[in-house]
Amino acid sequence: MFSSELKFIVQLGILIVFTRIGGHWLRRWLRLPGVLGELIVGMLIGPYALGKISWPWVGAMFPPLNGAMPISTELYAVATFASIVLLFLSGLETDLSTFLRYSVAGTIVGIGGVVFSFLLGAGCALWFGLADSWLDPHALFLGAVGTATSVGITARILSEHRKMDSAEGVTVMAAAVFDDVLGVIILAIVVGTVRAETSGGPSWQHILWTAGKAFGFWIVATVAGLLLARRFSRILKYFKTTQAISALALGCALLVAGLSEMAGLAMIIGAYIMGLSLSRTDLVQVIQREIEGLHNILVPVFFATMGMLVNFAAVVPVFKIGLIYSLLAVISKVAGCGLPALFCGFNRHGAIRIGTGMLPRGEVALIVAGIGLTSGAIGQDIFGIAILMTVITTVLGPLFLSASFENPAPGLRHPEDTTKTVAPPIVLPFPSADMADFMVSRIVTAFRNEEFYVYRLTPEEPTYHIRKDDIFFILSRDGQEVRLTTSQRHATMARLLVAEEMLTLRSMLHMATEDGDYASFEQNFVATLFQDSTPPPAE
Amino acid sequence: MFSSELKFIVQLGILIVFTRIGGHWLRRWLRLPGVLGELIVGMLIGPYALGKISWPWVGAMFPPLNGAMPISTELYAVATFASIVLLFLSGLETDLSTFLRYSVAGTIVGIGGVVFSFLLGAGCALWFGLADSWLDPHALFLGAVGTATSVGITARILSEHRKMDSAEGVTVMAAAVFDDVLGVIILAIVVGTVRAETSGGPSWQHILWTAGKAFGFWIVATVAGLLLARRFSRILKYFKTTQAISALALGCALLVAGLSEMAGLAMIIGAYIMGLSLSRTDLVQVIQREIEGLHNILVPVFFATMGMLVNFAAVVPVFKIGLIYSLLAVISKVAGCGLPALFCGFNRHGAIRIGTGMLPRGEVALIVAGIGLTSGAIGQDIFGIAILMTVITTVLGPLFLSASFENPAPGLRHPEDTTKTVAPPIVLPFPSADMADFMVSRIVTAFRNEEFYVYRLTPEEPTYHIRKDDIFFILSRDGQEVRLTTSQRHATMARLLVAEEMLTLRSMLHMATEDGDYASFEQNFVATLFQDSTPPPAE
Repeated sequence: MFSSELKFIVQLGILIVFTRIGGHWLRRWLRLPGVLGELIVGMLIGPYALGKISWPWVGAMFPPLNGAMPISTELYAVATFASIVLLFLSGLETDLSTFLRYSVAGTIVGIGGVVFSFLLGAGCALWFGLADSWLDPHALFLGAVGTATSVGITARILSEHRKMDSAEGVTVMAAAVFDDVLGVIILAIVVGTVRAETSGGPSWQHILWTAGKAFGFWIVATVAGLLLARRFSRILKYFKTTQAISALALGCALLVAGLSEMAGLAMIIGAYIMGLSLSRTDLVQVIQREIEGLHNILVPVFFATMGMLVNFAAVVPVFKIGLIYSLLAVISKVAGCGLPALFCGFNRHGAIRIGTGMLPRGEVALIVAGIGLTSGAIGQDIFGIAILMTVITTVLGPLFLSASFENPAPGLRHPEDTTKTVAPPIVLPFPSADMADFMVSRIVTAFRNEEFYVYRLTPEEPTYHIRKDDIFFILSRDGQEVRLTTSQRHATMARLLVAEEMLTLRSMLHMATEDGDYASFEQNFVATLFQDSTPPPAE
Repeated sequence: MFSSELKFIVQLGILIVFTRIGGHWLRRWLRLPGVLGELIVGMLIGPYALGKISWPWVGAMFPPLNGAMPISTELYAVATFASIVLLFLSGLETDLSTFLRYSVAGTIVGIGGVVFSFLLGAGCALWFGLADSWLDPHALFLGAVGTATSVGITARILSEHRKMDSAEGVTVMAAAVFDDVLGVIILAIVVGTVRAETSGGPSWQHILWTAGKAFGFWIVATVAGLLLARRFSRILKYFKTTQAISALALGCALLVAGLSEMAGLAMIIGAYIMGLSLSRTDLVQVIQREIEGLHNILVPVFFATMGMLVNFAAVVPVFKIGLIYSLLAVISKVAGCGLPALFCGFNRHGAIRIGTGMLPRGEVALIVAGIGLTSGAIGQDIFGIAILMTVITTVLGPLFLSASFENPAPGLRHPEDTTKTVAPPIVLPFPSADMADFMVSRIVTAFRNEEFYVYRLTPEEPTYHIRKDDIFFILSRDGQEVRLTTSQRHATMARLLVAEEMLTLRSMLHMATEDGDYASFEQNFVATLFQDSTPPPAE
């Protein structure tokens, strides 16, 4: 009854408004992470639930369409675009240096989790007769969905408990980087394999060849991206404005995404490689800042769209299998990451914290499942199981992780190793809030000049997260006091930086005491200010 | 050959990359405004030009599709979304207060331009036999396309010549606001009329009734929007974060856009009304900042998409008519705005400046033409004429306006009226660049606290545009000097504000001279800083 553009705009409006409101309430009431809130809102308002209700005057908001795709192609196109933006940003935010620095523990923990998740996931499909062999697309997808940890949720919990810089926190972060990269590679191989099966039949040679090609493309593209990144960033800088630079970077990410799909991989893999390549250049912050708005509007739409694809009727028969699969997904990370951690200097407490920290699956799981469903490789039942697992692990992860930090026992077997523990905050009292504010802005500028990534928590609160590689500071102002928190290891560095800024402040202030310099400046200044002033108005 | 999502992503990537690069070069070489560059890039890479070339391996990038719509529905859906974002932001930026303050001259000038443009545009269609009567959709659309001035281009020229605060500048700005509003109303009536014709035949009563309904919806929605804006902004603020607030505002704009289309108007009208309603609340800056990224990526795609719809083959037969129509579009604004200006205290020079300032058509013209084409009300010939006119007026506008300011003669008949002229800049020398920087940031904060809108020109340059209602400041730092430019009328206000900030700086500095306060603070400070310091590392 409506034109397709009108329907698209109204649906987009509904998605944006409802994911925000629903996400807000679910976060407040049930303390659910944003991703989950948006996913659930999508399930509720989607074509398999409220969306199919026909309203007077306007009809159904999300009428179920025929075929595999229950939503309109326009909406799905926007969701695809959002998933590329998401993975591009996720690549951009990848902290390769942290990963390389903590690579031993991180790699072992990451590999353990990925291998366990893939085997248990694919094995579950085999066991319950959802797949015939290990190379069945159903088994491959159920294996791949569980591999990638969604580190955002864990990072927030770690940050709330001030454990971001703890040995467990750093290891989880490093493992999650590895995990993400490995998850993307596995997706590449799975997509390659599935395409090979559908095109050339399930011959082992053919499959190995395609998987090898996918892995090869991944390696070649990543290495080429990392090698050419600096040259590419120089080209981008030629366009001067941050708007042009970030738009071009995103545009190229879309093109590389297209290329990677043509090469037989998923589009998000190209976007991720593009982001990863740029992650080591100094354009990261510029691009992040400019694309944040796009991310803010579109990514919730993507999560809600994934929720809208869940066909409840198809999930009911496999619900029990879904629960078992979710349980296996929990076990696979707790055991797969926790056991290796025991061999990397952690004790029982530390191993459990690392295992639970790696629990939540999120955006990558959803994207993998979505690719499976829309490519026809898996049906709505397997898709439903994957979504169920994402929801359950994302709910349990934060609960378990918080609980594991209740016991303040150290997580390392040799806890005297203080290089990784957090130092008591440096509290700097100033004679006035004005001066404290001035000092905060000077410190922030000083860190920015040292190429630290400075992130202001909220516009209202003067609290900054400052980060480069494995160095992490929290800077905040509380009335006349400035507080700087960091690890024992970097406390000295922080003190020197603050002292240096104090010297600048001092030289500014000393102008006031020497030779009446300041008094004469002030006189001149006021004279300049009002030299040609008209009389003040009567108002 | 490719899946539709892949094609969409690649096309989007190409559009984003090429509009940026092409726009950049066209701006540098031919000094064309960005909008025009993007439009031309769209024409060049579109399905009627380079886009139809079939490349080895990948095929044609923009293969022409059959039917009225030569581009894919996904791409068109994104372009529609972009046009809504554009008009929402344009409503949000509408400076209703300036308009109300300068309403007499602005209204008369605005009405003059709109009436002349509509009559000459529609008359041109009749004269050349493109339309049978004044109510023919062709005549209505050619009339409507020419009405709305694209003030962005003019504003940049005025700003370059430092004439933003001149009598001419302010009048053009006020007239352009009126112009935009009137253009949207005319579009509403035209769309309503055209729909009435296609549904109920061209009976006068029916058309009047529909046009009246459209106008009624406009008035009711705008008044309701303005009345409910504060309540709505209170509801939005309940969601705390700027991300949620701006996403909800945009989501509601999409929904209102949908509603307005259901009410028989164009979608952009609803988006504009939503923006206009929020323009008087204090959320403007928050929403603008968050949606800027979306605007930056998507709006060039929209302009390029409009260019891609131009079918050169269809334009060739009517090219001569297009040139005459463009000439009429120039005359209609120069005469339609210039003549009324002569009755509002301007002399010949001022009238010509105002007339040429109103020349450029832009986004609204493109949107109106796009709506006409895609709704089937006009054909590709009329669409081509409209685009041609947009290109020509947008090229000529800045050239003429710059030329009209070459002659420094005052534009007012009684130029002794100095309240509107720009004062010489206040130059404040500081003893150090550090202190100058500090002062700039204090002044910016002070203006922000007074609810001024502060806009930093580029991240590299410390130059700020500061604006509230008709008050306009330019603040910049040049080495150790701070410069503040404003009109004669507001110079005193600026001086008082600077003096007040100097007092703060003084009280900060005086701590250093009184009672050794500062020395003891510094001692304490350094003691606190290093009290529990570990020895500096060996590195």
